[in-house]
Amino acid sequence: MTRWKLKIEYKGTSYAGWQRQEHAKSVQQTIEDALFAFCQQNICIHAAGRTDAGVHALGQVAHFDLDYGDRPLTGEALARALNAHLLNRSISILRAEPVGDDFHARFSATSKLYTYEILNRQAMPALNKNLVWHIRRPLNIAAMESASRYLLGHHDFSTFRAAQCQAKSPERTLDRLEIEEEILEDGRLLKIHAEARSFLHHQVRNIVGALALVGQDKWTPEDVKTALEAHDRKKGGPTAPPDGLYLVQVRY
Amino acid sequence: MTRWKLKIEYKGTSYAGWQRQEHAKSVQQTIEDALFAFCQQNICIHAAGRTDAGVHALGQVAHFDLDYGDRPLTGEALARALNAHLLNRSISILRAEPVGDDFHARFSATSKLYTYEILNRQAMPALNKNLVWHIRRPLNIAAMESASRYLLGHHDFSTFRAAQCQAKSPERTLDRLEIEEEILEDGRLLKIHAEARSFLHHQVRNIVGALALVGQDKWTPEDVKTALEAHDRKKGGPTAPPDGLYLVQVRY
Repeated sequence: MTRWKLKIEYKGTSYAGWQRQEHAKSVQQTIEDALFAFCQQNICIHAAGRTDAGVHALGQVAHFDLDYGDRPLTGEALARALNAHLLNRSISILRAEPVGDDFHARFSATSKLYTYEILNRQAMPALNKNLVWHIRRPLNIAAMESASRYLLGHHDFSTFRAAQCQAKSPERTLDRLEIEEEILEDGRLLKIHAEARSFLHHQVRNIVGALALVGQDKWTPEDVKTALEAHDRKKGGPTAPPDGLYLVQVRY
Repeated sequence: MTRWKLKIEYKGTSYAGWQRQEHAKSVQQTIEDALFAFCQQNICIHAAGRTDAGVHALGQVAHFDLDYGDRPLTGEALARALNAHLLNRSISILRAEPVGDDFHARFSATSKLYTYEILNRQAMPALNKNLVWHIRRPLNIAAMESASRYLLGHHDFSTFRAAQCQAKSPERTLDRLEIEEEILEDGRLLKIHAEARSFLHHQVRNIVGALALVGQDKWTPEDVKTALEAHDRKKGGPTAPPDGLYLVQVRY
């Protein structure tokens, strides 16, 4: 029995999210189907982060255990075989490697990086459709940056936590919350980078939703501080759409 | 009568190219349909470059003449109205502005910039499907750069010209041919930038096809020089697929 670690890229648009579900197509199920096609075994795979419907990944990580008998199997061969079964599925195995039995994609992770992309221009996206959040009105980035500083560090993030979140504690430590601005000829692309050891359900999308209110001058930066301190989701503003969110990297 | 200039972004994947055709969906026809929906007039639009099927644009330019009576019409209002009719068409009008009667999207252009993207890694693209040329084997970029230097400047480009090209002369001046390398965690993204006053039909894709042979060590850089000097398409190597090609900018 060997434990394998996969690094995975996917476009989440046509999936009901990472996690296997009874009546909808998930990324997990699609990869498990590819594994079955490869070795005729029903194998359960475990991801670092269970991304929501419509959320993308540049570097999702997952692990699973495979009994391949005495036959030799390299990471390259495994990745190639799985990819052959994932053609036209908007999922690509970037890397496969054997790891120790104590490796767990989720529990061994020391940090995760999510990036949220906002296309901030008048015209709708043609090339980036479903891959960005489109906001027409020019955002006040300086104000968004001021607001983001209130969220850095260790806090009770109840205000930015989905009602269905199953985490025991609402406390998390946000190690990085940075807004990168790429100037386009007809607008801007904002990349909001959020890094933490772990996140609450919808935490990044809820934070981005509040920052967007600040960017649109509907909230002041201090309103984000007030919302954070209320420990109440109802005080937190909207949830940003999944389209702009990417699980970029998981570190171990 | 006012002449309008449009700047247009589109994903070419589901189109038979820019130019209107009898039995296939074109970008031109789709925008003309949006114009008709806006003003109930059949108006012909003229593009700076007639991109092939599957080729994308970040900054295509087109012009047309519109008689809108005495009613006021701003570029912003026109772009917004057209975009309302282009939703879910993978076409977006980035800008509309009135120009002089002597402006011609194609003939007034002083230079065009095309960029060709190659995803050079083992795993197939999930997020960039149809938006890059996927080459698995690591390319020899230094050799590709050497080869590209033979193509810079004024030449008879018959070797890199499609048989159906309608230009009178096979001579063109390539002002820029540069390979930009973006390092990814599991490979590289190459961006080949080609700039000229005008291009022959398939010229960029044929040049990239030859450069890829060099990158795969199937050709030496000098083979590209020999091919160029043969003035013979049959000596030119393959045509790169349309997926990786973008019309980025037209200058006037």
